[in-house]
Amino acid sequence: MSLVLKDCKNGERFEGTLLVNEWKEVPFRQKPGAYLSLSCQDRSGIIQGKMWDYSPQVLAWLKDQDIFRVKGVASEYRGTLDLTIETIRVIPVEDVDLSDLLPSSPVTADELEKRLTTILERIRQPELRALLQQLLAHPEWGKAYRQAPAAMKVHQAYLRGLWEHSVRVAELADGIAGHYPEMDRDLVMTGALLHDVGKIAEYSYERGIKFTTEGRLLGHIVLGIELVTEEIAKIPDFPRQLRSKLLHLITSHHGRYEWQSPKRPKLMEAFVIHYADLMDAEFFQFQHAKENHPDDEWSPYIPSMERSIYLK
Amino acid sequence: MSLVLKDCKNGERFEGTLLVNEWKEVPFRQKPGAYLSLSCQDRSGIIQGKMWDYSPQVLAWLKDQDIFRVKGVASEYRGTLDLTIETIRVIPVEDVDLSDLLPSSPVTADELEKRLTTILERIRQPELRALLQQLLAHPEWGKAYRQAPAAMKVHQAYLRGLWEHSVRVAELADGIAGHYPEMDRDLVMTGALLHDVGKIAEYSYERGIKFTTEGRLLGHIVLGIELVTEEIAKIPDFPRQLRSKLLHLITSHHGRYEWQSPKRPKLMEAFVIHYADLMDAEFFQFQHAKENHPDDEWSPYIPSMERSIYLK
Amino acid sequence: MSLVLKDCKNGERFEGTLLVNEWKEVPFRQKPGAYLSLSCQDRSGIIQGKMWDYSPQVLAWLKDQDIFRVKGVASEYRGTLDLTIETIRVIPVEDVDLSDLLPSSPVTADELEKRLTTILERIRQPELRALLQQLLAHPEWGKAYRQAPAAMKVHQAYLRGLWEHSVRVAELADGIAGHYPEMDRDLVMTGALLHDVGKIAEYSYERGIKFTTEGRLLGHIVLGIELVTEEIAKIPDFPRQLRSKLLHLITSHHGRYEWQSPKRPKLMEAFVIHYADLMDAEFFQFQHAKENHPDDEWSPYIPSMERSIYLK
Amino acid sequence: MSLVLKDCKNGERFEGTLLVNEWKEVPFRQKPGAYLSLSCQDRSGIIQGKMWDYSPQVLAWLKDQDIFRVKGVASEYRGTLDLTIETIRVIPVEDVDLSDLLPSSPVTADELEKRLTTILERIRQPELRALLQQLLAHPEWGKAYRQAPAAMKVHQAYLRGLWEHSVRVAELADGIAGHYPEMDRDLVMTGALLHDVGKIAEYSYERGIKFTTEGRLLGHIVLGIELVTEEIAKIPDFPRQLRSKLLHLITSHHGRYEWQSPKRPKLMEAFVIHYADLMDAEFFQFQHAKENHPDDEWSPYIPSMERSIYLK
Amino acid sequence: MSLVLKDCKNGERFEGTLLVNEWKEVPFRQKPGAYLSLSCQDRSGIIQGKMWDYSPQVLAWLKDQDIFRVKGVASEYRGTLDLTIETIRVIPVEDVDLSDLLPSSPVTADELEKRLTTILERIRQPELRALLQQLLAHPEWGKAYRQAPAAMKVHQAYLRGLWEHSVRVAELADGIAGHYPEMDRDLVMTGALLHDVGKIAEYSYERGIKFTTEGRLLGHIVLGIELVTEEIAKIPDFPRQLRSKLLHLITSHHGRYEWQSPKRPKLMEAFVIHYADLMDAEFFQFQHAKENHPDDEWSPYIPSMERSIYLK
Amino acid sequence: MSLVLKDCKNGERFEGTLLVNEWKEVPFRQKPGAYLSLSCQDRSGIIQGKMWDYSPQVLAWLKDQDIFRVKGVASEYRGTLDLTIETIRVIPVEDVDLSDLLPSSPVTADELEKRLTTILERIRQPELRALLQQLLAHPEWGKAYRQAPAAMKVHQAYLRGLWEHSVRVAELADGIAGHYPEMDRDLVMTGALLHDVGKIAEYSYERGIKFTTEGRLLGHIVLGIELVTEEIAKIPDFPRQLRSKLLHLITSHHGRYEWQSPKRPKLMEAFVIHYADLMDAEFFQFQHAKENHPDDEWSPYIPSMERSIYLK
Repeated sequence: MSLVLKDCKNGERFEGTLLVNEWKEVPFRQKPGAYLSLSCQDRSGIIQGKMWDYSPQVLAWLKDQDIFRVKGVASEYRGTLDLTIETIRVIPVEDVDLSDLLPSSPVTADELEKRLTTILERIRQPELRALLQQLLAHPEWGKAYRQAPAAMKVHQAYLRGLWEHSVRVAELADGIAGHYPEMDRDLVMTGALLHDVGKIAEYSYERGIKFTTEGRLLGHIVLGIELVTEEIAKIPDFPRQLRSKLLHLITSHHGRYEWQSPKRPKLMEAFVIHYADLMDAEFFQFQHAKENHPDDEWSPYIPSMERSIYLK
Repeated sequence: MSLVLKDCKNGERFEGTLLVNEWKEVPFRQKPGAYLSLSCQDRSGIIQGKMWDYSPQVLAWLKDQDIFRVKGVASEYRGTLDLTIETIRVIPVEDVDLSDLLPSSPVTADELEKRLTTILERIRQPELRALLQQLLAHPEWGKAYRQAPAAMKVHQAYLRGLWEHSVRVAELADGIAGHYPEMDRDLVMTGALLHDVGKIAEYSYERGIKFTTEGRLLGHIVLGIELVTEEIAKIPDFPRQLRSKLLHLITSHHGRYEWQSPKRPKLMEAFVIHYADLMDAEFFQFQHAKENHPDDEWSPYIPSMERSIYLK
Repeated sequence: MSLVLKDCKNGERFEGTLLVNEWKEVPFRQKPGAYLSLSCQDRSGIIQGKMWDYSPQVLAWLKDQDIFRVKGVASEYRGTLDLTIETIRVIPVEDVDLSDLLPSSPVTADELEKRLTTILERIRQPELRALLQQLLAHPEWGKAYRQAPAAMKVHQAYLRGLWEHSVRVAELADGIAGHYPEMDRDLVMTGALLHDVGKIAEYSYERGIKFTTEGRLLGHIVLGIELVTEEIAKIPDFPRQLRSKLLHLITSHHGRYEWQSPKRPKLMEAFVIHYADLMDAEFFQFQHAKENHPDDEWSPYIPSMERSIYLK
Repeated sequence: MSLVLKDCKNGERFEGTLLVNEWKEVPFRQKPGAYLSLSCQDRSGIIQGKMWDYSPQVLAWLKDQDIFRVKGVASEYRGTLDLTIETIRVIPVEDVDLSDLLPSSPVTADELEKRLTTILERIRQPELRALLQQLLAHPEWGKAYRQAPAAMKVHQAYLRGLWEHSVRVAELADGIAGHYPEMDRDLVMTGALLHDVGKIAEYSYERGIKFTTEGRLLGHIVLGIELVTEEIAKIPDFPRQLRSKLLHLITSHHGRYEWQSPKRPKLMEAFVIHYADLMDAEFFQFQHAKENHPDDEWSPYIPSMERSIYLK
Repeated sequence: MSLVLKDCKNGERFEGTLLVNEWKEVPFRQKPGAYLSLSCQDRSGIIQGKMWDYSPQVLAWLKDQDIFRVKGVASEYRGTLDLTIETIRVIPVEDVDLSDLLPSSPVTADELEKRLTTILERIRQPELRALLQQLLAHPEWGKAYRQAPAAMKVHQAYLRGLWEHSVRVAELADGIAGHYPEMDRDLVMTGALLHDVGKIAEYSYERGIKFTTEGRLLGHIVLGIELVTEEIAKIPDFPRQLRSKLLHLITSHHGRYEWQSPKRPKLMEAFVIHYADLMDAEFFQFQHAKENHPDDEWSPYIPSMERSIYLK
Repeated sequence: MSLVLKDCKNGERFEGTLLVNEWKEVPFRQKPGAYLSLSCQDRSGIIQGKMWDYSPQVLAWLKDQDIFRVKGVASEYRGTLDLTIETIRVIPVEDVDLSDLLPSSPVTADELEKRLTTILERIRQPELRALLQQLLAHPEWGKAYRQAPAAMKVHQAYLRGLWEHSVRVAELADGIAGHYPEMDRDLVMTGALLHDVGKIAEYSYERGIKFTTEGRLLGHIVLGIELVTEEIAKIPDFPRQLRSKLLHLITSHHGRYEWQSPKRPKLMEAFVIHYADLMDAEFFQFQHAKENHPDDEWSPYIPSMERSIYLK
């Protein structure tokens, strides 16, 4: 049965692998004892689970692990679907596929790899190209770059989101740069691909998308600076001025102090990346709102944009 | 002699047609009487003029008119060039060419017309196309659109500046829109060409670039709304929703309340135009700073950007 | 039975004409099937309705219309009154009186007409007087001006609210202007009566007070400019300077950019209207709080004023 | 000779009593020795004085005193008038009339006293009336209230300015309050007359208008609280609630924290006083700009209003 | 039985003296009649009480008084503990000890008195010392100073909180001042002990911690100025400059206009007190979060600090 | 002759080694030719130099170098001292002592070294101690740390300023931390000594204090992160959590986003360092103002503090 949570209907049975991020025992009001309330997640969404009857073994498992094979029945109450869980059991780690448990980018890895390659091939400046190739082939970071989300919420908050966002910003920024002969397009593309690279360390996404403690203490700008600094150090004779410029693109890409950039853009290339980043995040929300409200004239209020948007 | 003011050297004679925007009589300190101090402008810049000896006739002319044929000698004092004026005389209006007296866009009218035509030809939506053609062919406004400056200072503050800026924003915005299939590119291009159209009435530029009283009281957003509303009214069956969207693009193109937009962007197309407008104005300043400081690593402080920019 | 919703007591029967703005079917938790939940409104307020048993015909009506004749019983639960609906039926459009369904100004139409006439009679400047008379006699706009609310919430959010607010602001502003001989009191009174005229098109109020799409895209300042511009165009030889001043009063009446005015006041008359507008909205909230909390020393927190106010 | 400084013409002789606020010895550039440069003020304005030749006696006087009898000749240089001083001598304190040396309100003391009396007579609440009468009859403060300026610059920055401003605000606020039956007009008038009373101690004006050290450390709101608290304490059985309200009017009259009010208005009466205060200060600047630029369409940029204003 | 509310367990009986700040009758949903819902507080916290059956006598008591002897049984519902009340009765005022009903500082009165004495002994300046001794020995204010809370929420919101906070700020500020020989440490310590003295009148705490009406209208800065002014007046020959400085410390201790200080710090001593105040309030929240979340890495979001804090 | 510029008097001869940062040729007004204007600096200040007569050799030197042996005569004009230069000549690099040309901290290197050692000895945590010792003994950075200024202007803008400021902040922060047992004082002292370490690379100070290009592009927070990251990498088994905390202290020490910190303080230790940094910078300005205006009651307006301060 390959049903996902979002497709469950009232009264249907469900069996599948789920991520249980949070759980607690809730005492009954009218009688002794308690039931289990669990937050159950797969790639399609999150649903509240209830288990009325459970052995101490189940509690022990829950304290230790967070991925389970779950059987139960969906039931609706006031428009919200719950899952009444009958059995829960541990599954071997090697049977788990992260992309079954968390949402992924609608753009496939194949397509992103192809678009990334196209961009890489257009970069002529040898050190920039070397830096990107080395990082993208790094056993740990290269993989993380292709898996990490682009955000907690707001935009591309799913697996491969960072990759999708970075490629899109690179394409967008390069297109804009093409109108101005003064721009260094190699630098624009490299900066665009690396502007958010610190998010690799800012988020963990093995068990739902969360901030890491390093992410909360340092933020993805400082973490990106650390990471790129370390990679550049491996490339002999990386030009000093080019290094400063590239680090500046990362440092300044939020565009304003109050948006947590410690420096504001001072290169044309930094401006382009800042605006392309902003636009891709905002257009993502338009696309998202149009998909979720296909019949509405206006979206609900969108807190990150501080407004409703017009969908027709 | 077709010398312009900027090319004058210390001690050289000058003869030419000049715009005199301001003047006053300055009493001598050590003796009775006064001399004339005049602000003299041609397309290359502004220079201070002094006339030691002048007839009442000259004063009468200055009270009435502001374009004159002037003869004199350039002289330098502490690095600043003055013009010691010997004679000044009135010239017939029909002999004056505005583009001799005020700076013009470095992009020629021919090139702008060609790029404008290219954009127009790509617009398929009939009412939008009709609206643009009608306005660009309007005996008064079509001409003004091709002559007005884009700003008082900051960016494209010269004849044909509005035209140059509008075409550039249309090209840039259309390129960005091309990455998002949801966008109405006809609307983007039309909105981009019209976003600043109210500047036709916000500035006067017959005698140096100045704000009009209407411009100061109402601003180019309200003036643009008035003008486009009036033009749309001439097109039968202009779709009501399209009209609202187009007026929204003008209303919201500054992007924020504190930048004098009474509404913020609520359409994808409005966002694109807002960002393209912002970027073209900022990149203009980069280009301008690079031209004026070809040997410097850093520009001087640029008040409108609240920073110095890196020029290497 | 002419009972209004607000006067219903626990256990009493109710029959009346109600506006049903929102409704949904809510599935039962413990059994198959669903009940209807409806938001029911008349001029005295809004109450939640529940219909446990209903035919498909009722659903069909609800999809199409929003005014119904409703019978039921009031019942209280934890201090909140609900309406258990027994029957619902359509009523002919011609039997509906909008003022039964929506709240209205406590000031009667007769009194407002009298105060409006007094103001009009004091205006001597012929074009301003003509403009007001023409607009107030306009078959569509004259009626709308006398029916529209002044706001969605906050102040005078009821039928005739715009009219009440405009007359009050005119009286207040004229009184202030009387202390300064430099002021053009005709202009003050005209601007005060017209400052919010765009709200005619910003709100719809046939079915509860809502923003129109034009209102959300353009706002009542731009809509007011459109409307007044069109009306002025019908008056031969309306002085150009007077037109600019009057449009400036509308454009600037919010007083600050961040309050959505694209220009700030630059005329004494514009300042007076801005402050009179502000004061009338704030004093409305004082009066409203005193009425609703006759025994309290302090009002609850008032979000629009960002404070509690003292009522004694 | 009763000539004032402002009326001096190039070459004319001047003799009069002047306030010398600042002076210094300036060494000659080309020869040994120095001349005296003095800032000379009378009620009509400030002029720069020069004394080429002076005895040690003059220096001794200048270190001690600041009001002198001065004789000299006016001479103009590049549009600016200087005073070449020939003799300077001390005058007995009893011969000095402060209103000869500092500018005064254009409204006479007689007229202000009359308007003040009219307001006082309208106040019926006995303790408020007693408080005002007692304070206005206070040997020190009553006199200071009628002499102090209303500001350093911006508005009514001259002798009797506080009095003029207070009376005007009381008249204006009372007129506004008249539209709202809920208002306590006695409290409005009293609060209006006292809102700025702390300026008595915030400014010194015996020798030009200056901040006192207490004024800089505490501000006129805190100083006003001190003063009114002390005066209320002398009135037996002043109602506690009335006292709190009156002190609140002073505390909150700037209307916003960032304008240095430690509390924002929470009474209708406090709002009225805040707005009347604001309006009177702003209209003063309109009147002032119209007087100083009778022929201009637009005023120069006015820093305190952050804009130019329209004068026609 | 000396059990406090916080220590009650599900099913346990409770008997004790409680403060009942709020209560209401709640009608039953399914049957006629109503039950009583009461907010019950003792020094350990607040709990919701329910009384299913009650005589009219109980209602009469509740309208009049707010401290009662209560008997009942604790019962848990979904993790929240309620108190099912069986009997409630009035107790004689003389049997009530405020510190049983409201939380108190964890620092004992003895320790605070000792630390306060240490500070007082270090102050050498005679008038400052006299002022403090007189105020701390004042029959009403001296007691209030030692009982009042330091805040409504956020920091030291319990009995003795003001005293604890003031002593801590004095110790902290004096330590900082010790690094700078220019500082007047007597003034620092006095200002630190008195900076929040107006809170005596800003809060009432006999019946839960609440704002007084004077507190809401004037704030603790103005109230502190009043109180200290009055006390200083009793000390003969208190130096005028010292008085101004001390009042400045109170006036400016919030550091910024938008934090409700009508003047910003202009003395070194004022800066020290401002920062010591800020730090003590922030560190209190760290300590509080660490105590309440001993096992967590991160605190929940803390609204007053606009962030989560790291606890490890 | 060991005279410094500040001690020159009108008419005196001067001979010394000077730093010439800026110079230009100024054409004579009344005759052909030009003179040289030079900005001359030594450790005591900056003075304007004039050279009326100079050989092409001098121009060649000025284009290449900026430290010279200068002879001339001081002359005063309108209160300002100029230096009329007679001869100028190149000096061997090995004869130049930077501390003759630039101002230095009033605290001697010996005293700073002693206070630094005291702090180091108190740090017990082995990795933190190792990190500091390694960095302070680094051949390049250890020296730079002891030479760099703390700022361009505002506070400690002289040689050894960074060192003085860091030691002071460490002492201050440690004192504050001593009041709170929860604080990790080793971390506080280490963070305080390193918070501004990036200023080593942000400023150059060989030829006057200037921003480097890296400093302008990245800022001292990012540069400090780079430097400390690199040093930590050399220490085996530096605890990961301690590393994150220490980097957080640097990242957050400006305290607010708008002051260019990409993260705000989330550790008690980070708060302490932020406030100690702020206080030391502000108290420096008090001390500086008191020294420069020993007789004044009020300082002139201090732009960085946005106020005047009270000096008595």
